[in-house]
Amino acid sequence: MISRNNIAAAAARIGGHVRHTPVIRLNSIDCGMNLPVTLKLELLQHKPRGAFNRLLSASVPGAGVIAASGGNHGAAVAYAARILGVSAEIFVPCTTPATKVARIKSYGARVVQAGANYAEALAACRDRQAETGALEVHAYDHPDVLAGQGTVGREFEQDAPELTHLLVATGGGGLIGGIAAWYASSVEVVSVEPESCPTLHDALRAGHPVDAQVGGLAADSLGARQVGSLMFPIAQAHVAASVLVPDAAIARAQRLLWDRLRLVAEPGGATALAALLCGAFEAPAHAQVGVLVCGANTDPAKVADA
Amino acid sequence: MISRNNIAAAAARIGGHVRHTPVIRLNSIDCGMNLPVTLKLELLQHKPRGAFNRLLSASVPGAGVIAASGGNHGAAVAYAARILGVSAEIFVPCTTPATKVARIKSYGARVVQAGANYAEALAACRDRQAETGALEVHAYDHPDVLAGQGTVGREFEQDAPELTHLLVATGGGGLIGGIAAWYASSVEVVSVEPESCPTLHDALRAGHPVDAQVGGLAADSLGARQVGSLMFPIAQAHVAASVLVPDAAIARAQRLLWDRLRLVAEPGGATALAALLCGAFEAPAHAQVGVLVCGANTDPAKVADA
Repeated sequence: MISRNNIAAAAARIGGHVRHTPVIRLNSIDCGMNLPVTLKLELLQHKPRGAFNRLLSASVPGAGVIAASGGNHGAAVAYAARILGVSAEIFVPCTTPATKVARIKSYGARVVQAGANYAEALAACRDRQAETGALEVHAYDHPDVLAGQGTVGREFEQDAPELTHLLVATGGGGLIGGIAAWYASSVEVVSVEPESCPTLHDALRAGHPVDAQVGGLAADSLGARQVGSLMFPIAQAHVAASVLVPDAAIARAQRLLWDRLRLVAEPGGATALAALLCGAFEAPAHAQVGVLVCGANTDPAKVADA
Repeated sequence: MISRNNIAAAAARIGGHVRHTPVIRLNSIDCGMNLPVTLKLELLQHKPRGAFNRLLSASVPGAGVIAASGGNHGAAVAYAARILGVSAEIFVPCTTPATKVARIKSYGARVVQAGANYAEALAACRDRQAETGALEVHAYDHPDVLAGQGTVGREFEQDAPELTHLLVATGGGGLIGGIAAWYASSVEVVSVEPESCPTLHDALRAGHPVDAQVGGLAADSLGARQVGSLMFPIAQAHVAASVLVPDAAIARAQRLLWDRLRLVAEPGGATALAALLCGAFEAPAHAQVGVLVCGANTDPAKVADA
């Protein structure tokens, strides 16, 4: 299991390459709820913490780096590779939105569309990696990626030390795994998933990672079929609760972020907030709730039309 | 001239109604410049500081409040009036975008479209005020409005005490007037205006407020014909420089805010940053530059298409 020391080391390693994203405190008028809510605006960057920490911790071979992704991680790896001057090859499933494919290509990476979902793209990516010997940058299931993602928790604690609860959306679990490892149960970290992508929810019930059916509004960012093997014991130890939200609540959270804060969040980025809006997570009295708003890869026209 | 005490009192008065907006620090990769830049994300709220301070400092008559606006101030007054439970009547010129008119109406205010520009809308507003006796909430030329806007400077200093220079866009001058009054020359406050709206620039050259020709990309938020009579002596004393930027630089700043930060800023909100991008403001060595990003009233589809 990764430690706070691993995460602090990652923060030092990647500090020159990533932003310290800000928090903003909402009042009850903003969110229509009778409690203060603190958002961390991780959506203001292209999520490259895990990718940077992986690339900066390893020796990258001449063949460069290779990754499979629903889209966001691919953009993160492509961006990090460009900044660090190495080549990147990114495998995405055919469901990945054109906006995300274009973004990955804009960073100079080679994009291969393979398979109907993330798992199939990952299989194709691994076949290719065996040929080229490139450094695989897994989207979530690697200690350096988890430690890099954990720096989000470290920043959140610095900027909002008063929090008692923290809502984080779960896909493959790299982000919540890193954050839960940082807090180590000193706050209640709550996993939020769409009802249509109950990957961690099902795994916690089964007692081990299991295949979940994935679909719905946020599938392109949260639609990993299984949670990572490294994050799972962290979740068992340090994720206090796992809740599910309907797609309609996710759309409502996206709309609130735009109407009240002029923030353009993709569905996966608004999923944690949705749990507050629809009551899937009910804050106890005197709770100080933090919500991670992530997901920088979206199309503003979609929000305008929502 | 308003004092730091006036501004601190305004901060206490309006604190329950407005957000403390966050800052975010950009590195040289983000902004393509070889200096650190700190943005204050005032665009994450509908700019109601001045309006709230005015309404909370006065006794509002039964006729409610009345204001003229290019759009943003009208939305601020309508929002503050709704929250405080008083009626509002807002006069806007015919050039005000439909998005802004819709926003003002969404807060329950009566909207009157009158005149070809802000000055004509203001004249119509004042005729109406003489009939109804409503409380006029001027967009910028009132001490309570200036003190409310000055709370932006107070927050910026709290969150980024290291700044040496601060770029602020100028329209009627309420925001930069309040901010310059707060800093009182302890940092170099730089006014940025579109070449097509040189309102403060022309006034400083003339030695008194003069009518400027206003037009171009940011006219709906920065297109006041004259700066306020109250802000002008503050600007003479505490605005270190006044620079102008072309519309193309404003569009480029809007695009950078979207590409790098996923922020949707209207042209007026991106104007201060434009001065850095186009070199209208050249930072001296070792400068710590702050930029105010304001303007919460825009249409995301326009950014998507930009």
